[in-house]
Amino acid sequence: MSADILDRIAAIIGAKNIVTNADDMVPYLKEWRDLFRGKARAVIRPGSTAEVAELVKLAAETGTPLVPQGGNTGLVGGQIPIAEGRELILSLQRLDKIRMVDVEGDTLIVEAGVTLQRAQEAAEAAGRLFPLSLASEGTCTIGGNLATNAGGTAVIAYGNARELCLGLEVVLPDGRIWNGLRQLRKDNTGYDLKNLFIGAEGTLGIITAAVLKLFPLPAARATAFLALPGPEEALALLNAAKASAGGTLTTFELMPRVGLEFVLRHAPGTRDPLSEPSPWYVLMEVSAQSASGLDEALEAFLGDALEKELITDAALAGSLEQRNAFWKLREMLSEVQRFEGGSIKHDISVPVHATPEFLARAIAKVEEMIPGCRPVPFGHLGDGNIHFNVSQPIGADKEAFIARWDEVNHEVHAIVADMHGSISAEHGIGRLKRYLLPGVKDPVELDLMRTLKATLDPKGIFNPGAVL
Amino acid sequence: MSADILDRIAAIIGAKNIVTNADDMVPYLKEWRDLFRGKARAVIRPGSTAEVAELVKLAAETGTPLVPQGGNTGLVGGQIPIAEGRELILSLQRLDKIRMVDVEGDTLIVEAGVTLQRAQEAAEAAGRLFPLSLASEGTCTIGGNLATNAGGTAVIAYGNARELCLGLEVVLPDGRIWNGLRQLRKDNTGYDLKNLFIGAEGTLGIITAAVLKLFPLPAARATAFLALPGPEEALALLNAAKASAGGTLTTFELMPRVGLEFVLRHAPGTRDPLSEPSPWYVLMEVSAQSASGLDEALEAFLGDALEKELITDAALAGSLEQRNAFWKLREMLSEVQRFEGGSIKHDISVPVHATPEFLARAIAKVEEMIPGCRPVPFGHLGDGNIHFNVSQPIGADKEAFIARWDEVNHEVHAIVADMHGSISAEHGIGRLKRYLLPGVKDPVELDLMRTLKATLDPKGIFNPGAVL
Repeated sequence: MSADILDRIAAIIGAKNIVTNADDMVPYLKEWRDLFRGKARAVIRPGSTAEVAELVKLAAETGTPLVPQGGNTGLVGGQIPIAEGRELILSLQRLDKIRMVDVEGDTLIVEAGVTLQRAQEAAEAAGRLFPLSLASEGTCTIGGNLATNAGGTAVIAYGNARELCLGLEVVLPDGRIWNGLRQLRKDNTGYDLKNLFIGAEGTLGIITAAVLKLFPLPAARATAFLALPGPEEALALLNAAKASAGGTLTTFELMPRVGLEFVLRHAPGTRDPLSEPSPWYVLMEVSAQSASGLDEALEAFLGDALEKELITDAALAGSLEQRNAFWKLREMLSEVQRFEGGSIKHDISVPVHATPEFLARAIAKVEEMIPGCRPVPFGHLGDGNIHFNVSQPIGADKEAFIARWDEVNHEVHAIVADMHGSISAEHGIGRLKRYLLPGVKDPVELDLMRTLKATLDPKGIFNPGAVL
Repeated sequence: MSADILDRIAAIIGAKNIVTNADDMVPYLKEWRDLFRGKARAVIRPGSTAEVAELVKLAAETGTPLVPQGGNTGLVGGQIPIAEGRELILSLQRLDKIRMVDVEGDTLIVEAGVTLQRAQEAAEAAGRLFPLSLASEGTCTIGGNLATNAGGTAVIAYGNARELCLGLEVVLPDGRIWNGLRQLRKDNTGYDLKNLFIGAEGTLGIITAAVLKLFPLPAARATAFLALPGPEEALALLNAAKASAGGTLTTFELMPRVGLEFVLRHAPGTRDPLSEPSPWYVLMEVSAQSASGLDEALEAFLGDALEKELITDAALAGSLEQRNAFWKLREMLSEVQRFEGGSIKHDISVPVHATPEFLARAIAKVEEMIPGCRPVPFGHLGDGNIHFNVSQPIGADKEAFIARWDEVNHEVHAIVADMHGSISAEHGIGRLKRYLLPGVKDPVELDLMRTLKATLDPKGIFNPGAVL
């Protein structure tokens, strides 16, 4: 790549929207948990879809690889080039307009660089709910959420990012713009292109705008923090809760005692809502369009669960403050693990009914491999999605523990494969899991994926090195 | 095609599973509303996925076009070859096994030829709901439902067929089998192939089995038949109902007085639930996991709607019998139109908020074109999806009226295009709407569709003449 491509880029987006200084590039190149730093020739920051299209045309002409990036909160390195340093990071952050709020049609049209939190706030200002909810929502962007088909804590009731999107605007690898910004709930006029780009991690097209689905804003929520003997009881409770609350069951998150202890130890201002320790906990929330009877229904349900010994204790949030305190216990869980030394991570899913069996097998396996290690499996039991993280034994050498990352991944993923699960339930493949894909994917499927990539992006300029 | 290909097919599936006799082929070639008859060389009826794969390999080798067919209930001719008569109809009806009912994981694995009703019944026998619901559910098959991304009356709460499917097994145009029968709620390991085959009307792959999502079986339903001044009030009522009932609003179907009159006139045993005629009606249903308070909540909601003059009268179903009677008024609406002479049909969608405007414009246009014609627009207001059917003027010549089909379509679709809607909301493109596609589709999108077809099915053996 010669310097003059930057001149040509400057002619499209203005020199001030090109970052080449090493220090200024750090926020785009640094993995946010500080696991690694990437390399790039420059960061380019277009301000409109038309500018993105011009940049892509230039990249196609010159064979310049582009790595699209939103809020740089991804967990698998899909947004950070790590190999050659030839790549340009195409930041979508300046595409930050909320183009339309359609209250009566329950849709919201936003550009890719709008943060998830701004989208949530725009919906709420219109008396609606945009339910996607992630720990990084203040920073991550809608474009990134869709490119990675983000999950989070509301999937059980509302689905992944994929299910929350009605239409897309996408810049294709030849610089053409596909305007698929449909606000339609139903449209059966041909192939589903939208879902080809959602979850493709920027390897097939660059999402520049999206039509999002809005929902009625719940008028009331009832939240409980529950003590349970184990995952089997949690699964039985989940099924009872679904039968009892149907689609109004909006949260069902599992966590082990050790996870709660980590939070209590390291997150200031947290406290155990229950008087006795319990091996496992569930954060459960039910939402409704009317407050009337909601708390009473939850209390009756939990009374029944106590009687059936599915739970051993329960705390109900009596105020918004208490609800936030319960949620904080769940939300801090990712963050506090680093204070306990090294942590080897997985983001797996299995069929929902198989989650207890997975947990039993995976916990036994890692405890056998590394005596004294502390498994901290937590997450979205309602989706069969567990963040199976393993903290190092107390007092062990962090580096020696982390050195066993691949070996532990290998064993845990073998259990996942045996149970027909997924090694990336919600984080994607990116660059970090790319080498695992051939080992877990049906060769026919992998071949279809490669065929699609080669057909849509024959020059391989979109996010090379990610996914495939 | 020489006779010996049928010998080779017989070697795969047995001679008794090949239909060549003209009379025996009629049920596969006759459009069910008797609009036309197709032509085919033979109907072949494999009994397993492996047999489908063998047949497809043979078709690929010999360049033999295959038209996959389920229950032959499609409304756009996607399942019936009409051109050359060279095609073989590949009937999936013998793939009729229910492979697995997973109660705790809320999934159901069925083969393509299982009828929708059998899938519903299998779910219900396990205490679960499979919510897809169509007039043709006794005959249509899951394979066809997925190939056409079927809609129906429960989309407002549960989504289209696409949203109800977790995984697929597909035979590809080269005869390879893609096993994507995942029972996972979350899986972000690569491109979304599933949604490429769903809605592709058998042109990219042949769906042989699917993993379906199940839901809690509602414990109670409250059903109301409502009189309204017009679509504007219906839209306001819809939004109030969504705010009040959230995801528990499971039906919201609009119909005009003339439609009710057609039903009362031609469907034996029906009667008007209300004492005074009204220009428009809505069938509304709310479902819940507990009967407690459900009727009272609906009554309170409707009392408020009466006060706000969104509705002018309401009948609540006091028994299952009454509920079925209300539903019959809606369900008979398609069928009875033929007793009133010719009917020119459309299956359109617009953004939900724009439905009243669409209705006003489209009704005015057809009344201007054909004075005395009787518009019977009805359907899924909650999805912005209206079956905009137009019955002939009383006493007019049926053939002369039907001769204006294309002209009327053209004008109505022009309004749809102007409102950024869809000319096929839930029925698909098939063969009947194929020629309309270039006129309504973004050229970039059409080009992407053609590229995908040429890449995945380079020999063009899957359902040639459908969609593209």
